[in-house]
Amino acid sequence: MAAVRALVASRLLASSAFAPLHACTPRAPLHSSAPRPGARVALVLSGCGVYDGTELHEASAVLVHLSRGGAEVQIFAPDIPQMHVVDHTKGQPSESETRNVLTESARIARGKITDLARLSAANHDAAIFPGGFGAAKNLSTFAVDGKDCKVHEDVERVLKEFHKAGKPIGLCCIAPVLAARVLRGVEVTVGHEQEEGGKWPYAGTAEAIKALGAKHCAKGVTEAHVDQKNKVVTTPAFMCETELHHIHDGIGAMVKKVLELCGK
Amino acid sequence: MAAVRALVASRLLASSAFAPLHACTPRAPLHSSAPRPGARVALVLSGCGVYDGTELHEASAVLVHLSRGGAEVQIFAPDIPQMHVVDHTKGQPSESETRNVLTESARIARGKITDLARLSAANHDAAIFPGGFGAAKNLSTFAVDGKDCKVHEDVERVLKEFHKAGKPIGLCCIAPVLAARVLRGVEVTVGHEQEEGGKWPYAGTAEAIKALGAKHCAKGVTEAHVDQKNKVVTTPAFMCETELHHIHDGIGAMVKKVLELCGK
Repeated sequence: MAAVRALVASRLLASSAFAPLHACTPRAPLHSSAPRPGARVALVLSGCGVYDGTELHEASAVLVHLSRGGAEVQIFAPDIPQMHVVDHTKGQPSESETRNVLTESARIARGKITDLARLSAANHDAAIFPGGFGAAKNLSTFAVDGKDCKVHEDVERVLKEFHKAGKPIGLCCIAPVLAARVLRGVEVTVGHEQEEGGKWPYAGTAEAIKALGAKHCAKGVTEAHVDQKNKVVTTPAFMCETELHHIHDGIGAMVKKVLELCGK
Repeated sequence: MAAVRALVASRLLASSAFAPLHACTPRAPLHSSAPRPGARVALVLSGCGVYDGTELHEASAVLVHLSRGGAEVQIFAPDIPQMHVVDHTKGQPSESETRNVLTESARIARGKITDLARLSAANHDAAIFPGGFGAAKNLSTFAVDGKDCKVHEDVERVLKEFHKAGKPIGLCCIAPVLAARVLRGVEVTVGHEQEEGGKWPYAGTAEAIKALGAKHCAKGVTEAHVDQKNKVVTTPAFMCETELHHIHDGIGAMVKKVLELCGK
């Protein structure tokens, strides 16, 4: 019955009865539609949903600020299985379900997405990595291995390529652990280093950053830290217990600094 | 093997090795954490992803603007199977996979979500419905039936409750068809009524609005239309082929008008 309904519906997708619905599915406008010159930015996703993929509000904020800054965006994700599929109503991973990081990331990209294996720093002026558990489960093993984590080979390659080319890299929330692991001695922020009554409940993450061989620089949620030497820009985002618009604004500060470092 | 990995990982979730990861998963800050008084707004979702659920950039923009406006938000979705599970890299529905609207919507809500059946207008000052195919596949049958569509019984009940109580309702993208179907004679916008060289590729949707017995009022993507009599506020969002920040700003205009109509 479900299959019949899906079949009927998929036929209707192609019929005129469905025409009004395409109203919500233009593929172009989210990214890369701007005819004006601007920085060419690669956005690297890790799924769709805070517990097993990209924190989608962080990704959306990055895209809004890149759009406002006139950037031309291309979105990437690795074509690999997710470590977990988490029921976000319960916070528990499924024992049986599997999903693909690229396929789920396409929900954020509105279908326009490319395998991370095809991302070359030669074609872009900057790269940005939003947070969410996906950065620590799918782009690295930080969720399981902490300071001994491995970083996905294409993520490591991309970070090293952009760094070597002197092109800026932006990261937020937990994603700075990727830079801390790959770029030795880099300066990043994951927020404050004390819990301060619950405002920074995961302040201990700063210690993990240091254990990875990086330097931690405390910043507020609406601020971005710029490592000028390495051209790495970070902001705490959801590391802070605060209201969403502060996180949106902090990501705006990060994106602005990345675009400034692009020199465009 | 996958099951073993999931088991190991779920054990690690509870261990100290996982502590840094919680950094990305505070549940409170996205909505309802503000101690200040403000409008109590119900956000109604329909999944997570433009092709089979809520357009997540629209939902995120609504939440950013509600946060900035000091609103106290509670997020709802119906506990029903999705009509489709669409592979967003291909735009095609799966013949076999099923997902639940409430469970997938929880990805946008960061886990804090309530069954739509429990939403009562008595407990909120306003309700907002983002767009995406979910509004026309899961909250109604508009994707299949067009002007003859049925609206999910709880969606119809909620719209009528808020309307009867004189409380504002905000909708964007394709979601205005829900109000057009339920609230006879309501004024809404889904953008312009001519394609204008591709800027409004789905301009024909305005005709469907009229066929539903509503009045269509053409508006630009950064504007919101206010039906003062019915307290219904709408904005085109992704009906327009444009850059994301214009859509973000149009949703901001819609949210601002909704909050003004709340009188808080």
